[in-house]
Amino acid sequence: MNREEALRLVKTQITEHRYQHTLGVMETSIALAERYGADQKKAELAAIFHDYAKFRAKDEMKEIIASQKMNPNLLAFNSELWHAPAGAYLVETEAGVTDREILDAIRYHTSGKVKMALLDKIVFLADYIEPGRAFQGVDEVRNTAKENLDLAVIEALRNTIFFLMKRNQAVYPDTFEAYNDLILNSKEKIQ
Amino acid sequence: MNREEALRLVKTQITEHRYQHTLGVMETSIALAERYGADQKKAELAAIFHDYAKFRAKDEMKEIIASQKMNPNLLAFNSELWHAPAGAYLVETEAGVTDREILDAIRYHTSGKVKMALLDKIVFLADYIEPGRAFQGVDEVRNTAKENLDLAVIEALRNTIFFLMKRNQAVYPDTFEAYNDLILNSKEKIQ
Repeated sequence: MNREEALRLVKTQITEHRYQHTLGVMETSIALAERYGADQKKAELAAIFHDYAKFRAKDEMKEIIASQKMNPNLLAFNSELWHAPAGAYLVETEAGVTDREILDAIRYHTSGKVKMALLDKIVFLADYIEPGRAFQGVDEVRNTAKENLDLAVIEALRNTIFFLMKRNQAVYPDTFEAYNDLILNSKEKIQ
Repeated sequence: MNREEALRLVKTQITEHRYQHTLGVMETSIALAERYGADQKKAELAAIFHDYAKFRAKDEMKEIIASQKMNPNLLAFNSELWHAPAGAYLVETEAGVTDREILDAIRYHTSGKVKMALLDKIVFLADYIEPGRAFQGVDEVRNTAKENLDLAVIEALRNTIFFLMKRNQAVYPDTFEAYNDLILNSKEKIQ
């Protein structure tokens, strides 16, 4: 699927504001893919589709999580997490994208996970640092992303965990596990 | 076992500085037990023995963790965690304490865990807020501890997680899980 077709499909699903964010994630993902040697076409498509399910009804996402036997634990945590795995399912079934790497990058773009693939890291990070983002700490992560992908993902995960914990919110276990996994297994790269 | 006998046994195991800390944890644990309706005698003994293994050789603690089939995952994380489960074992086998609640409070006093018992929370928190402690955020936790045990434990867990993550250190999963468990299951008490 080419960029125009993908953007046309996504545009029917999300708000104009979210579409502009998606364009930012797309450009950032392509740049990160070029910088770190990932497939730029896959990065482009995963980024375009990453928020495909963002505005689906909670009940529909719940139903997908249950019927597709995704981790039921998701439902005990913030519903903001649901559009990522539900999105991977809908991008496959509605938009016809079948590439596993692209679908995984969509699936894990909000939570992260243990053993993130290169494409998972790129879309996760691009979603955090795309030019439209303006929150505390984002410039530091943007700078790190130019030099060290794993460390930038660690910083983004850490900021997300701090944001949630400062508000007395639960943190999805995959997010903690993604952090620990990168800290324990990327030592030579991050220090 | 009475207080004097327990203190006498512990004093042979730890430094004078750590012994003074232990006295602080003991007094604080008794006060918390009184405030929150726990067994004051058990709180006293668990506190006295909580750092029993603090100065054992790493190799000895490793051997205990392996031979007693404790979670092998412990060895992948900071060795500061090891004295708690190794201590529970040594307090039972060397000091002859057999009470499960006391041994568990020793076992989990550093990491926390899912479904902490009342005594676990008291010793964990007393270790964090005893009068000799002087680090950023401790006064806030001391104040919370007067009113809300679960929220004070959450604050202590959060501070510990932030401390580690700011230093790019891994966080033992039980600590994350203790935080999430209290956030998700103590809602009515903490908000």
